Amino acid sequence: MTISERKKRFKEKLNYYKSLIDNFLSSLFQDGYIPQELISAMNYSLMAGGKRIRPILCYVWGKLLGGKESDILKFASSIELIHTYSLIHDDLPAIDNDDFRRGKPTSHKKFGEAMAILAGDGLLTEAFYLMSSCDLPKDRLLEAIYEISKAAGPRGMVGGQVLDVLYTGKNIKDGDLLKKIHSLKTGAMIKASCLCGAILAEADKSDLKNASIYGEYVGLAFQVVDDILNVIGDEKKLGKPVGKDKDLGKLTYPSIFGLDQSYKYAEELVNKAIEAIDGYRGEEAEFLRDLAWYILYRTQ
Amino acid sequence: MTISERKKRFKEKLNYYKSLIDNFLSSLFQDGYIPQELISAMNYSLMAGGKRIRPILCYVWGKLLGGKESDILKFASSIELIHTYSLIHDDLPAIDNDDFRRGKPTSHKKFGEAMAILAGDGLLTEAFYLMSSCDLPKDRLLEAIYEISKAAGPRGMVGGQVLDVLYTGKNIKDGDLLKKIHSLKTGAMIKASCLCGAILAEADKSDLKNASIYGEYVGLAFQVVDDILNVIGDEKKLGKPVGKDKDLGKLTYPSIFGLDQSYKYAEELVNKAIEAIDGYRGEEAEFLRDLAWYILYRTQ
Repeated sequence: MTISERKKRFKEKLNYYKSLIDNFLSSLFQDGYIPQELISAMNYSLMAGGKRIRPILCYVWGKLLGGKESDILKFASSIELIHTYSLIHDDLPAIDNDDFRRGKPTSHKKFGEAMAILAGDGLLTEAFYLMSSCDLPKDRLLEAIYEISKAAGPRGMVGGQVLDVLYTGKNIKDGDLLKKIHSLKTGAMIKASCLCGAILAEADKSDLKNASIYGEYVGLAFQVVDDILNVIGDEKKLGKPVGKDKDLGKLTYPSIFGLDQSYKYAEELVNKAIEAIDGYRGEEAEFLRDLAWYILYRTQ
Repeated sequence: MTISERKKRFKEKLNYYKSLIDNFLSSLFQDGYIPQELISAMNYSLMAGGKRIRPILCYVWGKLLGGKESDILKFASSIELIHTYSLIHDDLPAIDNDDFRRGKPTSHKKFGEAMAILAGDGLLTEAFYLMSSCDLPKDRLLEAIYEISKAAGPRGMVGGQVLDVLYTGKNIKDGDLLKKIHSLKTGAMIKASCLCGAILAEADKSDLKNASIYGEYVGLAFQVVDDILNVIGDEKKLGKPVGKDKDLGKLTYPSIFGLDQSYKYAEELVNKAIEAIDGYRGEEAEFLRDLAWYILYRTQ
C-alpha cells in the first residue's frame, strides 16, 4: 500500500468517525433551559471544525474492546466539550491573547470576554452533566469520570496550563520542563480519552494498560508535531498565525531540540504507540495504527 | 426560647458543621501532583472564610435522612469548590470587576487574571474529581453528580450569570426576570445541595421532594436578603463595598420591590421552607429550621 493510499484509507475512516461526533454535538443544548446567547457562544466554538481527536480515540478504543457503542459515543463527545472549553479560556486576553482559532475570531473577539469565560465554564460543567447521564455500567462510568476529571483538572490540563503561563517568556531552555508541561497540558487528556474508551468497554487490566500507553505516546507525538507545525506550517491550513509560539517566548520542542531532533522524537513516540497495540486486529486497530502514523504526515 | 438564645443555639451548631467542612477542605491538593502556584491560588479563595452554606446543607440533609456521614462530607465539601470557582470568575474584570471579597483582595487582584481564571477552572474540575471518588452507592452518586452539574452549568448557575451579565446596567425593572436570574444563579445550587444530601442518603421520593422544596425556598430567601444587605448592610461585616449593585445598575429585589416588600417576600419564602420540613424531628431538623429562620436575622 502506498503512502497516499494509506492516507486516503485513514482520512475516510477519520471523516466517518468525525461525522458521528459532529452529529452528536450538533444535537446538544436544545432542551429550552439554556439562555440563547449562551447556546450561541458555546456552539460557536464547539462547532468550529475541530479535528475531534479526543472523542474519536475514546470511541474507537471503546469499539475495539467491545463496548456499547451508542453510549460510549455520548461519553466520548462530552470530552470534546472539555477540550473546547480549554481552548476558549486559553485564547483569553489574560492568557494567550489569541484573536483567531481555526480561521475564525476567537470566542472573546466574537462575544466579548465575559461571555467567553462563561461559555467555557458552561461547556466544562455540561460535559460532566452529559457524562453522568450515560447509560453505561455505573462502576465503570464513575471510574471514567474520575479519570477525565483528573486529566482535565489541576493534576492534568489546568496544571499544565498554569506551568505554561508561569514559564512563557522566561526563555528557559529546559527539555524536562517542556515535556512535563506538554504531558500535562495535552498528553493527559489524550491518554485519558483512550483509557476511558477501554474503561467503558469493561476491558480487563491488560487492555486498560495498552490503551493508556498508546494514548500517552500519541498525545506526546501530537504535541511535538504541533510545535513543529507552528514553525513550518501553513497559516491557511492551520487557521492561526505561524511563529506565534516563538514571538510569545513559549517553550517548544523545535526551540529546545531543533527541528530535526524534534521530528525524530515524534517518530520515536509514534513507533512506541504503534507497538503498544501490536496485538490487536480488525478495523479499529488498523485505524489506531493509521492515526498514530498519520501524526507524522499531518499539515494542520 | 428568646431570639438571642435561638441565635446562640444556631450559631454553635453552624460553627460545628462549618469546622467539619473547613477541616476537610484544608486537607486537599496535598498529593504532590499539582503545581504549587496553582495550589496557593485555589486555597487562597477556598479558605477565605466562606459561610459553607451549600456543603452544610448537603451534609445535614444527608445526616437527617440516615446517610453515611463521612463520605457525604466529602461530596458536600466538593460543592464548596464549585461555589468558590464561581466567585473567582464572577469577580473577574470582564464580569463584575470586584477588587475585594470577604475583606481580602479578589483572586485576580492577588494572583493576576490568568491565574484567577485557571484557579477557577481547577476548582470546578477538582470538584468532579472528588465527587466521582466518593465511597457511596454508585447509582446514587451518579444521580448526585448529575444534579450538581445540572445546577452548576448552563441550565443553572452559569446560565443565571449569563442573564445577569446581559441585563446588568440595562435598567430593566422586571420582577420575573430578576426571580429567574436569582433562581438560576444562586437558587439552583442551594436547592441541589439539599437534594444531593437526600439522594446520597438513599432517601425515598417523598424525602427527596421535601429536600428539594426546602432548598428552593431557602435559596431564594438567601438571595433576597443578600440584595437587602447590599443596600443596608455593614461593609466591615460583609467584607465588600455596600451599594455596589446599585452603582452597577444590577437588578435587585430592593430596586424593584422596595426594602419593605423585599423583606416581606423573604419572610414568606422562609416560612415556606420551614413548612416543607414540618414532619422531621431531631437535631438536624431543628438546625434546618433554625437556618431558614436565621436568614432573616443575618447581617453578613
